[in-house]
Amino acid sequence: MINVAILGFGVVGSGAAQVLADNAAVIEKNLGKKVAVKRILDLREFPDSPFGHLVTHDFNDILNDKDITVVAEMMGGSHPAYDFTKACLTAGKHVVTSNKEVVARFGAELLDLAAKNGVRYLFEASVGGGIPVIRPMVNDLASNKIEKVDGILNGTTNYILTQMIAGATFEDALKEAQAKGYAEANPAADVEGLDAARKIVILAALSFGTLLSPDQIHCEGITKLTLADVEVAKAFGCSLKLIGHTEQVAGRVLAMVSPRMVPLTNPLSGIADVFNGILVDANMVGEVMFYGAGAGKLPTASAVVADIIDIVAHMGQDGVRAPKFTVAAEQDYADFGAYTCRSCFSFWQEDGAAEKITAVFGDVKTVTVGNRIALIADAMTEKEAAEKAAKTGLTLLSRIRVLG
Amino acid sequence: MINVAILGFGVVGSGAAQVLADNAAVIEKNLGKKVAVKRILDLREFPDSPFGHLVTHDFNDILNDKDITVVAEMMGGSHPAYDFTKACLTAGKHVVTSNKEVVARFGAELLDLAAKNGVRYLFEASVGGGIPVIRPMVNDLASNKIEKVDGILNGTTNYILTQMIAGATFEDALKEAQAKGYAEANPAADVEGLDAARKIVILAALSFGTLLSPDQIHCEGITKLTLADVEVAKAFGCSLKLIGHTEQVAGRVLAMVSPRMVPLTNPLSGIADVFNGILVDANMVGEVMFYGAGAGKLPTASAVVADIIDIVAHMGQDGVRAPKFTVAAEQDYADFGAYTCRSCFSFWQEDGAAEKITAVFGDVKTVTVGNRIALIADAMTEKEAAEKAAKTGLTLLSRIRVLG
Repeated sequence: MINVAILGFGVVGSGAAQVLADNAAVIEKNLGKKVAVKRILDLREFPDSPFGHLVTHDFNDILNDKDITVVAEMMGGSHPAYDFTKACLTAGKHVVTSNKEVVARFGAELLDLAAKNGVRYLFEASVGGGIPVIRPMVNDLASNKIEKVDGILNGTTNYILTQMIAGATFEDALKEAQAKGYAEANPAADVEGLDAARKIVILAALSFGTLLSPDQIHCEGITKLTLADVEVAKAFGCSLKLIGHTEQVAGRVLAMVSPRMVPLTNPLSGIADVFNGILVDANMVGEVMFYGAGAGKLPTASAVVADIIDIVAHMGQDGVRAPKFTVAAEQDYADFGAYTCRSCFSFWQEDGAAEKITAVFGDVKTVTVGNRIALIADAMTEKEAAEKAAKTGLTLLSRIRVLG
Repeated sequence: MINVAILGFGVVGSGAAQVLADNAAVIEKNLGKKVAVKRILDLREFPDSPFGHLVTHDFNDILNDKDITVVAEMMGGSHPAYDFTKACLTAGKHVVTSNKEVVARFGAELLDLAAKNGVRYLFEASVGGGIPVIRPMVNDLASNKIEKVDGILNGTTNYILTQMIAGATFEDALKEAQAKGYAEANPAADVEGLDAARKIVILAALSFGTLLSPDQIHCEGITKLTLADVEVAKAFGCSLKLIGHTEQVAGRVLAMVSPRMVPLTNPLSGIADVFNGILVDANMVGEVMFYGAGAGKLPTASAVVADIIDIVAHMGQDGVRAPKFTVAAEQDYADFGAYTCRSCFSFWQEDGAAEKITAVFGDVKTVTVGNRIALIADAMTEKEAAEKAAKTGLTLLSRIRVLG
């Protein structure tokens, strides 16, 4: 019998208890061992929960319990989640987590601490909710050099954009997302791209070994997108998505979050509603994509429990492989100014606009949508894009990057 | 240094040698050990290959070489691949393979033999080419009960169907697939669904533990599909795909291959050309999909090498988890007659056809395409479908199952 403790009995924490209980038979069959929740740390009481009697308010009840060998941290936020994780790893307990904030900020230190203490720190649920992506990147793509990753990493914004593609305004789509419980009353972390930034930082570290700070990467949300942008995207045969992107630029790591037009031929284009997808481009396998529920109680809990199973399956074995992250120094960040990508420019439609566009961008296809004339230009730097737009003498209404 | 032998230096075998050589640095970094090809078994000579000097024609040179601890079988076909695999496992060598025929026919015995000899038998590349799907199903979905799997498992047929959706006839699309090297001169194994049958049998065994025979499952190919079927699918907002499907029916395992109309809201619908996608429905995580190149030299080789890395990473460890297959007895096969699914019926359009359809199928939406009138009926058994079609008194032109 493996005894697990749960830190934080919120949506995901209670989901993990449920997965372990409801799927106990299949887990025991797959693993050859029983796994059960012994204690749950939460400030609240849960008299109506079947797990209510396991709740303690004192972290030491878990830390000092030698029978508890695996701790599942699902508290959210940096503190005390980080501090408790450190204490557990130092005490020789394995830790699994769904907490992207802790992984994105302290993952390098915690992986290092786990290795030093002969235990493991796993975080499959921190990116893409229930979607298997971290373990496949570590194990299945170990034969590959990863070139780049593009991901729809936030279900709330993807729901809003799906509604906008169907004709709703940003404001109405946000209200509907809030009514359905997908968006919080204060939706900033989602719609400003901060949640996606934490996740792309984790994927960048898995790809290239360097853990950037989510605060120091280029991060644009979806609040400035309009229905006119959606219409221009459609006119170019594209969908509109919030994309976390990472690649290496001149040997240094670039990670960024921004809206992108996604050609309908790209498998990310059709990912709708709250679903997530992560498209990994690697040097031998080419493009592979992982798709599924990027959030939600049971999907995310399913990934947490997969990590617990992984840990139990490898207990007592030496030299189990683990990723290693190095905290990025200033010189490890790619120069965003050197990054190039295709862009869609939308200008105010005026007499002679098409000619002015041709004079600067050459013989490109333009589309006219309402009062806009738009084009997709070849890959160029941010500076070149700004200069070229200015050189037209036209009023720039929006510039949206294009995937691929 | 880990010494690997390659059995079969064809497309995938030479790709595996290339992946191990070209990505040697990244593999050593990920693994902490060097992995190199020591011998290659093939009947041919390869004087122009950088690996040509490693070729032997005598299997015993590999079997008796104690330094070779991992054997990668990429010969294709049942014999002698199966026999060599057995010999290697019995001799205490780990075996990895891309050979779906051997896994589908002998997987239960070979997994058992590997377990008895304290070695492993891995076959990530046998389904979905380079796509990580077997290991994620075994590891990441171990917290879940798998409910069903639907997969686009054959790149050749998906290429042909993609061309048909773009307007080409089956014959022209097949010729183009042959010209591009996607289809063989004798394309039966692909277009009749036999290749997909082997793969769905493997996925069924991973899902439910029972290894069915690919010869004993319902298997329909794409040779009877016409452009009219494509048009009817489009009229109902669907794509047309060859789908391998597995689920449990009354506690027994059903696996089947057949064309299906796939609603455009389903992530499998957009998978084009030679790409594959495997959609797994599991009880906690819901639907997850794995997408990528389902064939090809380097993608498939990438999966073979991922298996080699997995083996090397776990060398010397006891009790490494492995799937266990039980060979299906007759009573383990689900009764295909009890299987129900939605279907699209296309009848010859004639006076009063709509009324006759309503009389039998109730108030369903119909579409008229050319000389056809078509409807999608609720889920029913094969027998019910045949009876209802006959009861209309109309001429049935085609019945195509509908996914979901």
